[in-house]
Formats: sequence, C-alpha cells, structure tokens
Amino acid sequence: MIDQKRLLRRTTELAQIGGSGAAVSRLGLSADEQRARDLVGTWLSAKGAQVRRDAAANLFARFGGEGEAILVGSHLDSVPEGGRFDGALGVLCAVEALESLVDAEVRLRRPVEVVAWADEEGARFGVGLFGSAASFGRLAPGVADRRDRDGVSIAEALRALGERGDPAAARRDPAELAAYLELHIEQGPRLDGAGLPLGIVSDIVGIYHARVTIRGRADHAGATVMTARADALAAASEMVLAVERIARGRADSVGTVGEIAVRPGAKNVVPGEAVFSLDLRAARDHDGLVREVLDGVTSVASSRGVTATIDELARVPVTSLDPKIREVLKRATKSVGVEAPELVSGAGHDAQNPALSGVRTGMIFVRSTGGSHTPREFASVEDAALGAQALANAIRELAS
Amino acid sequence: MIDQKRLLRRTTELAQIGGSGAAVSRLGLSADEQRARDLVGTWLSAKGAQVRRDAAANLFARFGGEGEAILVGSHLDSVPEGGRFDGALGVLCAVEALESLVDAEVRLRRPVEVVAWADEEGARFGVGLFGSAASFGRLAPGVADRRDRDGVSIAEALRALGERGDPAAARRDPAELAAYLELHIEQGPRLDGAGLPLGIVSDIVGIYHARVTIRGRADHAGATVMTARADALAAASEMVLAVERIARGRADSVGTVGEIAVRPGAKNVVPGEAVFSLDLRAARDHDGLVREVLDGVTSVASSRGVTATIDELARVPVTSLDPKIREVLKRATKSVGVEAPELVSGAGHDAQNPALSGVRTGMIFVRSTGGSHTPREFASVEDAALGAQALANAIRELAS
Repeated sequence: MIDQKRLLRRTTELAQIGGSGAAVSRLGLSADEQRARDLVGTWLSAKGAQVRRDAAANLFARFGGEGEAILVGSHLDSVPEGGRFDGALGVLCAVEALESLVDAEVRLRRPVEVVAWADEEGARFGVGLFGSAASFGRLAPGVADRRDRDGVSIAEALRALGERGDPAAARRDPAELAAYLELHIEQGPRLDGAGLPLGIVSDIVGIYHARVTIRGRADHAGATVMTARADALAAASEMVLAVERIARGRADSVGTVGEIAVRPGAKNVVPGEAVFSLDLRAARDHDGLVREVLDGVTSVASSRGVTATIDELARVPVTSLDPKIREVLKRATKSVGVEAPELVSGAGHDAQNPALSGVRTGMIFVRSTGGSHTPREFASVEDAALGAQALANAIRELAS
Repeated sequence: MIDQKRLLRRTTELAQIGGSGAAVSRLGLSADEQRARDLVGTWLSAKGAQVRRDAAANLFARFGGEGEAILVGSHLDSVPEGGRFDGALGVLCAVEALESLVDAEVRLRRPVEVVAWADEEGARFGVGLFGSAASFGRLAPGVADRRDRDGVSIAEALRALGERGDPAAARRDPAELAAYLELHIEQGPRLDGAGLPLGIVSDIVGIYHARVTIRGRADHAGATVMTARADALAAASEMVLAVERIARGRADSVGTVGEIAVRPGAKNVVPGEAVFSLDLRAARDHDGLVREVLDGVTSVASSRGVTATIDELARVPVTSLDPKIREVLKRATKSVGVEAPELVSGAGHDAQNPALSGVRTGMIFVRSTGGSHTPREFASVEDAALGAQALANAIRELAS
C-alpha cells in the first residue's frame, strides 16, 4: 500500500533542496541536484537496494539480482524558478512504489532499478535529457566540453561532483533492461480539464531546436527611406508569423519563437542583425513541419534581401511508446479505479532515450494544475498516490 | 578666409578627446564632453570672445556687445562608438567662420555667439537635444532626475561638472536672438549620391518615440496547442510589420522598431511579454502617421487577445526652417560656388529648439560619406571649409 503521509513528507523534504518559497531552482549537475540524489539514495539503501552513481551522475538503486531489469524513475533537476513536481514526482513515486512492494514482501522474478536521471532540463548547459542520453549512448560528440555562462564545462561540473568528467562512460547495454517506466506530471492542462488524475502517454512529439541568425544592414532610422532598408527585425517578424501560420495549418504541430535579440539594438537604428530560437514539435510528420518552416524562413530572407543562417541545435524524432507496455499501464491504472486516457506528450522526456534504444517504454502522466516549469505547478498527494500505486501494479505485472 | 590646415588640425585634436582609433565615444555630460567644451572655449577666448557656461553645461562664446545676437553652433557629444564629425563639425566650422571674420576685421553690427550644446545625442540619459532644450525652456518636467544605467541622475552629472544640478536655470529669452544657424553632416546619403558638398535644410521631420509593452501569456512551447496561445512575440511581430507597411504607404515617412526584448525569453516557452521601441518620423502629417500606427498596434492587440501599453517618450512636431534664413543660406552657399539643394532632415537636431521657440533658424548640411553615428562617418576638409565659408558669409549678411 502506498503511504500517502510518507510520500507527502518526502515531497516536502526534497523541495527544500534548492527551494525558496514555492519555487525550486535545482539545476542539473549542481551541488543541489547531488544532495537530492544522495537523499533518494539514502531512502533506497535503507530498504536494501544496491545504490550506485554512474559517470554521468545518474543514480541507480537496484533491488534483486541477475537478469533483465525493470527500470523506473525520472529526473531530480528543475528549471530556474521551477516547481517541486516536474521530474521529482516521478522519482518520489518510483521510490514509493518500490517501498510498497518491499513492505508487502511481494516476490519479484526480475530485478527492479529506481533511477534518478541527471540534468534532464538542460537549463545550465543547454543539453536536455543529458543523463539518460549518456546512459543509452545517445550523447552528441564533444558534449562534455559544453560550457555554462560562467565558462564551466560539463566535464568540469562532473568532476566537481566526484566523477571523472567523461559522461560517455555511463553507457550501459540496453539489453540489460526488460522495460522502462516513467511517471511525470502532465505539462499541459488536458487531464485537469477532463477531471482525470492519470493518463497514459502514447507518443512523445518530435522536437527540433535551432538558432536562426538574420543579417541585414543597420541604418539610421531617420535618414534611411523605407525602400532602401534591409531590416533584420522586419524579416524576423515575417518569419515568426510564418512559423505560427505553418504550425497552425498542420495536424498535431506546434511552433514557437521564444527568444529574440537584435543588434545594434537602439531605438533610432534599423536592426542590422536579429537572432531568434526555433522550437518545432509534431506528433506526426515532424520532418515535414521542420522542412516547411525552414523553407518559409529561406523564402522570407531571399524576398527581403537579407541572409538567414540556421544552426540546428537538436533534433529528436517522434517517439511512439510501446503498445504492450501501454496495455500494462492501462490495466495498472484501471486497477486503481482510473480510466486513464492516452495522450500525446508535447514535451520531451528521458523516456525517449530508452524508447529510441529499443527498450520497451511506457509513461504515466499525473494531473498538474498550474502547468509545469513554474512554482505554480501542483499535483495533489491523492493523485500522486494513485500514480505510485499504478506504477507498483505495473512493476508487479512486468517483474513477475 | 577659412584656414583649412587649422580646421583639419583642430578636427584631429578634438577627436582625441574620447577617441580610440577611428571611433569617438564622447557622451553627453561626461568629463570628456567637458574637456572638449573647455578646448573650444580656449580657442574662442584667445580670439577675444566672452566665454561662459550655463546651468545645462552649454558653452557660449560671445563676440560683440549689446543687442539681438546671431547664434551659431552645434553639439560636442557623440554616441558610443560614433565618429568625429556628427556635431563636432558644426562647432568647428562655427569657430572657423568666426575666426575668419575676426581675422579679416569684418565689422559686425550685431553680436555673434558660438554655442556648443551639451548632450544632443541623449545616449546616456535617453534625453536627446538636452542642452538646447534647456536653453529654450523646452525641457520636460523632472528631467533632471533621469538616471543612467549606473543610477547617476542628470542633476548629479551636472554637479560633477561644477554646475548646480538645475538645468532649467539655463533658460534664456529667445528674444535675445536674431537668428540661429547650425552646420551638421548629413546623416543620409543624398548629397554624396548627388555629388554635392552642401545642402540647405528645409524641414526637420516630426519625431515620435514610444515604448510598447505587449502582455500575453507565457506557456509551455510543447504542451500548449497553437489555438490556445496568447503569444506576445507573435503579436509584436505583426505590429513590426504593420509599422513597416504603414510607413511605406505614406509620403515622406519612416517607421522603425530598433529594439525588442521578450520574457521569459527561453526557447521552449511561449513569450508572455514583449517590449519594443517605436520611432516614427514624417516631414508631412506626422500626427497622421503616429495615429495610424497606434491604431494598428491596438487593433493587432485586440484581435490577438493581448494587451498593448504605449508609453510615449518623446514627440516633436515637424519643424519648418525659416524661409528668409534659407534664402540667406542659398546666397551664402552660392557665393562659395555650390548650388545647394534643399533637403528634409530625417534626423532630429538642436536647431528644432530655437525654431520651435520662434527664433529664425537655418541649417547647412555637409556631405558625409559613410553615414553618421559610426566611425565610418566622414566629411572632407575641403567640404568642411566650403561649409565654414558659407556660414561666415551668412553671418556676415545677417549681422551687418
């Protein structure tokens, strides 16, 4: 049985690490993330797990001996000024699920490992899903040399945490794993809107990130007639609207320009340069979306006599989660009294890395009021307990 | 006769103050601007002028006794990383014109004053035409409390220069002045394109500056469908294009968005807020241009479900320069062999303040290759000497 009081107490205890008021700022590969990992390790070794940390600062706590393991967990880092549930709730519910199985002396045929992935958010180094990518051998080459704003590299940050600074050494054989399960708060409002505590993820959208640099010509705002301008911001504005129009016109697609900056950036100077971010996601035909937007950017640039340079930062294809595991999760949620709907995840998750590496993978969403990546994100302990119980039921089915 | 060697030597000498390589960074109300003023004062008192500084740090050097004076000059400050000609050339040519008249022992019936206005650019405190506005009683209330990025106020900056910190006390009676003349490099390419060294300004465009704040709603870029967004940057982008379209559609009008920033400013978050600058200029129906753009901003905001707050920062009407002075300048330029065309100035000038205060005002433009507000701005000493000679001729006609 899930112990709601213990779950609530631990949620509160974990939120103190890097927390200030309702907000939690527990960045990936920071000392705070390490303290959170150590706390979780203490809980699980007290229950008899073998606890270890790998070269990418991921925490694994293993129950049971040889054989293909069921891996279950999420991440412990947050965005700056985030909340206490995004990531952390998945680790807390995995711990709680395992404790309930151990407490009930359930006999499992397969080993089970709880995992706390390092630096899922990528807030500090710009490398999202870092720990899980390292574990499944999916890190981009040279990523250990990426630096934060203070010039500290990922390798240096890992060494400060007691590792060797070589995250690629965290790679393990996916064949060691029978399944991967992750519980996470829903980042959107669909469960809350439908009045349902739990959902099952069918697919995770493909995600494309790029930085686009527009170069026109800076000119005096008073002395340069409109027809003689090569205004980088006007071009970028037309591109922002093209992203919006294209994403609206395609099924299950979103497109966002979340950052923009212009140079020289003075009120009386026509912008000579504009740099903006592109975030393109789709559950279907993600490549088609990316292609159409990049064509749009190129076409605006050429019609306006400016140049557009597109630096691709990340590209993850659509991830469809395992149909058999979705059936297991369907039964597991039904057994706690919830008719959980299948949902597409518009956000990226560590679950993509095992899924794309051939590990049977499933995800449970827990209702969040107030969204995610904000101190307002909130999952009730009742909903969380339902999620943890469903997770325990699924582990029991998969490990027996 | 104009002494080209002296003019060139002094141009070079002045450019050392706040200069580095080809660039000059001599901000308004700085110690460097003060040093430039002191240097100019030294040259003129050596020629017998009575030199004084007013409460707004403007420098006046008077030749002659009682009566309505001819005022002639420009400013000595530059933008950061500007050039050696914008502003400075007008003071240098005024000095040179007066010296040539004194050297030639020309007898003038009216007194003549050379002026070096303080802080024309407004680069540090955001208050353009500062010194001339103070002198003509056109400063906005409370302007002395405006602060730079380091928290230093205009009043404090004036006190650091030895003034009392009350720029409004610089006000003088416009009835003391018979005329105001200013020579300035052209900020645009028209004289250079036409192969002409000098032009005469007919009108200075009306200028409107505002800061527009768009408030929508920040949302997760992955979990928020396109139709549920209130994207502040998409709204701002539509406004940027509206500014462009409206300015293009109107005669003698330009519209520029030179600055933009979004919040929270992360690649995976829909912008909840966008702030941008508006710079609207027209030589005709400036009010109509401003009204049409603000209507456009409001209409985009309401169609997108975001709010737009418009903070007006400055609004100067179209300034038509005095027809009689323009005739004087026509003759003065013709007598140095130049058929000077009449031009509209798309940039603001200190000359607006006397003109709007009822002082007969005229301006000469000197050809600049390489524009203005950049180390590339350049007026040849031959062109400058023609301008100084025309200025001397005009002073001679007006003061006799």
